[in-house]
Amino acid sequence: MLINEQERNALYKVIYGRRDVRSEFMPTPVPNEVLLRILNAGHHAPSVGFMQPWDFVVVSEEFTKAAIKQGFDAANAQSAQLFSGERQEKYNSLKLEGIMDAPLGICVTCDRERNGPIVLGQTIKPEMDLYSTVCAIQNMWLAARAENIGLGWVSIIDDKVLRAALDIPERIEIIAYLCLGYVSEFSEQPDLEKHGWLARMDINDVIHAEKWSAQK
Amino acid sequence: MLINEQERNALYKVIYGRRDVRSEFMPTPVPNEVLLRILNAGHHAPSVGFMQPWDFVVVSEEFTKAAIKQGFDAANAQSAQLFSGERQEKYNSLKLEGIMDAPLGICVTCDRERNGPIVLGQTIKPEMDLYSTVCAIQNMWLAARAENIGLGWVSIIDDKVLRAALDIPERIEIIAYLCLGYVSEFSEQPDLEKHGWLARMDINDVIHAEKWSAQK
Repeated sequence: MLINEQERNALYKVIYGRRDVRSEFMPTPVPNEVLLRILNAGHHAPSVGFMQPWDFVVVSEEFTKAAIKQGFDAANAQSAQLFSGERQEKYNSLKLEGIMDAPLGICVTCDRERNGPIVLGQTIKPEMDLYSTVCAIQNMWLAARAENIGLGWVSIIDDKVLRAALDIPERIEIIAYLCLGYVSEFSEQPDLEKHGWLARMDINDVIHAEKWSAQK
Repeated sequence: MLINEQERNALYKVIYGRRDVRSEFMPTPVPNEVLLRILNAGHHAPSVGFMQPWDFVVVSEEFTKAAIKQGFDAANAQSAQLFSGERQEKYNSLKLEGIMDAPLGICVTCDRERNGPIVLGQTIKPEMDLYSTVCAIQNMWLAARAENIGLGWVSIIDDKVLRAALDIPERIEIIAYLCLGYVSEFSEQPDLEKHGWLARMDINDVIHAEKWSAQK
């Protein structure tokens, strides 16, 4: 099945318009069929040995979100201490999560034992199942953007907090906690670029011909 | 910027039509501007703390590919031994790479020290930079599909082989070796589903409400 130019341009529009949303969430409910389309996009990600190791825990109760938010606050206070001076001030001025603002949370996990102990394609690189789960997240991120729904990946939470709040067994790997919801706007630039935390690198500095060590 | 229904449907068409390609590569050269659009899609993936930790080593020489193919053959023979009986026969009947057939290879790496020792968003979950790099790969996978270019992730190669062939320093993490090229067709189903290795799971079995342990 061929993709035409218009469809190709639509993909690039979604890729370039995607943001890691923290500040612009609105309480507008996300219809269930829209949520299902986003999850189904995740479920159709590539996976090593076709093992489909992901699970999606959909969080919508205030009580659950509050426990997760508390975990973020503790982890964030601890993290801020790793920066100093101006950099710490800047860190503390950034909003790094939208846990309570977003109507939905999705915890994405990886079941490393799914479909048997030996996984085709994972015999040499044991982390492949974790990476497959991340591919599912990126599919969901783009699907959400195409639904005009913002998504933010909150990584400043101890796994222990999510395990307790969402009753996740020890043998299950926690990959991400995502916040989802309609937004007041999608920023033109990533938040951290806009606020001067770091600049976008020149793409020529990350492309190498034939050898990693080659003149970029 | 709003995404309209037609654009949204285009994204889903790309997501559902994407395949992990091994068998259908054609030697048709990939124009440089098309390759650049695919790499640029990767470069616009989300990254923890906006660190953009990825590098893309573009492989096009037969000599380099042959060294990588040799590494695959050794790793694949070793991997086949982990299966037995009918499962091993099936394993050996599958084509799991298109290294020599695809006109291009891209090795995707992660520079864990890029932009300083402490990374915003990575203070609690140290694997976040690896996951950002995987997001870049999934962006490239979808961009390739939108360009009607097949992409296959070959994970059955020892990192040592890629390090030697592509001159990758020890401190740089190797995430993936990707094969890229135009294809004779995109399969309707994933290869491993088509060949009966595993079936597609019911999406309802991977969605949980509020608790991982909840009735699915």
